[in-house]
Amino acid sequence: MATVNIAIIGAGVVGSEFIFQLANLKGYINYNVVVLAENKRVLRSEDYSPLKLSSWREDLAKSQKPGMTPKEIAEFLKGSKLPAILVDNTSNQAIANSYPLFIKAGISVATPNKKAFSSDIKLWNDIFDYAGKPGYGLCYHESSVGAGLPLISPLKEMIQTGDEVLKIEGIFSGTLSYIFNEFSAIKPSNVKFSDVVKVAKEKGYTEPDPRDDLNGLDVARKVTILARISGLPVESPAAFPVQSLIPKELESVSSGDEFLQRLPEFDDQMESLKAEAAKEGKVLRFIGSVDVPNKEASVKILKYDASHPFASLKGSDNVISIKTKRYTNPLIIQGAGAGAAVTAMGVLGDVIKIAQRVAH
Amino acid sequence: MATVNIAIIGAGVVGSEFIFQLANLKGYINYNVVVLAENKRVLRSEDYSPLKLSSWREDLAKSQKPGMTPKEIAEFLKGSKLPAILVDNTSNQAIANSYPLFIKAGISVATPNKKAFSSDIKLWNDIFDYAGKPGYGLCYHESSVGAGLPLISPLKEMIQTGDEVLKIEGIFSGTLSYIFNEFSAIKPSNVKFSDVVKVAKEKGYTEPDPRDDLNGLDVARKVTILARISGLPVESPAAFPVQSLIPKELESVSSGDEFLQRLPEFDDQMESLKAEAAKEGKVLRFIGSVDVPNKEASVKILKYDASHPFASLKGSDNVISIKTKRYTNPLIIQGAGAGAAVTAMGVLGDVIKIAQRVAH
Ligand SMILES: NC(=O)c1ccc[n+]([C@@H]2O[C@H](COP(=O)([O-])OP(=O)(O)OC[C@H]3O[C@@H](n4cnc5c(N)ncnc54)[C@H](OP(=O)(O)O)[C@@H]3O)[C@@H](O)[C@H]2O)c1
Ligand SMILES: NC(=O)c1ccc[n+]([C@@H]2O[C@H](COP(=O)([O-])OP(=O)(O)OC[C@H]3O[C@@H](n4cnc5c(N)ncnc54)[C@H](OP(=O)(O)O)[C@@H]3O)[C@@H](O)[C@H]2O)c1
Repeated sequence: MATVNIAIIGAGVVGSEFIFQLANLKGYINYNVVVLAENKRVLRSEDYSPLKLSSWREDLAKSQKPGMTPKEIAEFLKGSKLPAILVDNTSNQAIANSYPLFIKAGISVATPNKKAFSSDIKLWNDIFDYAGKPGYGLCYHESSVGAGLPLISPLKEMIQTGDEVLKIEGIFSGTLSYIFNEFSAIKPSNVKFSDVVKVAKEKGYTEPDPRDDLNGLDVARKVTILARISGLPVESPAAFPVQSLIPKELESVSSGDEFLQRLPEFDDQMESLKAEAAKEGKVLRFIGSVDVPNKEASVKILKYDASHPFASLKGSDNVISIKTKRYTNPLIIQGAGAGAAVTAMGVLGDVIKIAQRVAH
Repeated sequence: MATVNIAIIGAGVVGSEFIFQLANLKGYINYNVVVLAENKRVLRSEDYSPLKLSSWREDLAKSQKPGMTPKEIAEFLKGSKLPAILVDNTSNQAIANSYPLFIKAGISVATPNKKAFSSDIKLWNDIFDYAGKPGYGLCYHESSVGAGLPLISPLKEMIQTGDEVLKIEGIFSGTLSYIFNEFSAIKPSNVKFSDVVKVAKEKGYTEPDPRDDLNGLDVARKVTILARISGLPVESPAAFPVQSLIPKELESVSSGDEFLQRLPEFDDQMESLKAEAAKEGKVLRFIGSVDVPNKEASVKILKYDASHPFASLKGSDNVISIKTKRYTNPLIIQGAGAGAAVTAMGVLGDVIKIAQRVAH
């Protein structure tokens, strides 16, 4: 049976679900996990025989082996004649920086980690100038935007087959989707912005410090990725306007809790935006967009008619609208853009696609 | 450079656009077209060197060679040591019936032709009991439902990675999407059903005889395909309820023109359905659905709230909603579900994916 060696880094929310889904995969390819690394511990197969996925948690907890550097992992994978895939389930920048090392060594990469694709464009080029060329590894990152939603692969396919992106608009943050769907619903309500943020935090939808969602940077990173795929070589997420939802005065308060305590002082600003929109029969949404012909990208609050697909979004769903030369009525993709199961599915889908290309 | 041989059958609306897109493809794989067949003529490379795609139309018109049977094409492809793909751009049942022949000969199939996947389930099994197994060809058919919309591949991937489909609902016919979007818009109007059908025909949206759209069979075929992928082994499109929009009295009138002439006699029926829906603030849509836990499939007119994504559909777009164990809020995919460019793109995407797996 065709076999591929796999090194998994990161076994948190997404990583552990990924291992679960991988262990239950059926098919005609052997997915041979030979490295499983957390921050400070590692499980490694000495002879490239598969690690036991049924007891990985206990085995990793017991492991005495210190972590491996990316270079050590790449060298270990190269020690086998079998093709190999690195699965990066961390959000670590240093690991992201090492993708070129893997790809140039002929090792493929599958990851939900946005860092490599949304940092300096030099790193992007150092990956995609090589990935997929004969002799080099492949690089798939479906879950880096919209989690498991079919987005990155279809978009790349559209472009490869000759379509041209005109405009991408979307709601790319589950947290900010929830916050705006609640704050500015089609049915008008008096709910306060600060109260919605508080509830979102209580429900576990936000980062520990909600400012890490409200600063718009996560959305800017996703916009950077989509812009680059669409042919707009955005330098970095800092190279275009990004509206932060953090009041200037609260940018430097020391804790997330203090931030939440003081946020009500600034409810008036959001309230007046909402009232203005409501007067026109519109709602507010937090939108990332890419305009290819005009070479523009942005992240900001925009107003939408109640009949627009973005207005009727539910829960913490993401939605992406892609207008192209072929899709003059935009292609719209909507659904959960976060969560362990769908994110891990996106990563596993990437691993399957890579294995189907490289396993032998 | 890795190379794959390709035989293309059918060079109509989709087929000729497919050839155009293929000829412009860049990458690291040689797509070597060695057979190009229409109904009664064929271009064939004698020595498996590539046919000239820049002049295929003139060359095919001049060709003196009679058509080839599927068996002859399969044997010709087997005469080369290179892996091969059959691209079926016809709607022919006999060619569809021959897919098992190709797949068992190790030749892969890419096609927008629904016939193989929506006829008797024996044919389906004779394809998918083999496709993808070591030594057999692959079978991809993204454009058989929703044209180039990312639907079949993501759905198969969801299931392969362990998700379970609960419900699929959608508007799968561009023609009937247009007809119902016009007839039963969110903003109430007095437009008559028969008039909308007439305009749709004039705009070229319908088959030459509009009854071929209104009988619901095309939608039933697509529902059959999605049901089977979702794990419901539907025997055939005749195995579940399909609502026909053709008044009984007009089923046997001899021509499409006579049908259109007499359709106004039956406007009252559709009118009262529309009025009933409008009273509840709803619109009518022509829906195919699959309910996996209840083992049910159906095609019928359903009513939707004005705020539902199906209600705000535009033009002749398709929309598909997929509710699964993981996507409890359904995954929604919307956009053009017909047209040469997007359909050919779906087929070419399949060809690329196959070639990436089999070319060497
Ligand atoms: N969760 C979602 O819904 C979602 C959605 C889309 C995309 N993503 C992306 O998926 C990735 C993983 O997210 P997550 O929610 O699973 O995060 P998480 O629960 O924080 O897990 C991160 C894992 O990475 C490990 N890790 C961090 N740095 C490491 C290093 N240098 N070497 C080895 N292991 C390291 C951590 O190990 P320790 O515990 O030992 O530190 C932990 O196991 C992120 O890039 C995230 O942006 C997540
Ligand atoms: N058009 C769309 O928007 C769309 C969307 C989704 C899916 N599709 C599917 O795509 C397929 C092609 O559609 P189309 O619109 O391109 O149809 P089309 O314009 O009628 O073209 C069909 C082509 O197939 C050829 N053909 C028919 N039977 C043949 C045979 N036995 N051997 C060789 N060639 C044969 C015809 O050749 P002759 O001219 O010599 O008869 C013609 O070139 C169909 O299965 C359709 O359902 C189309």
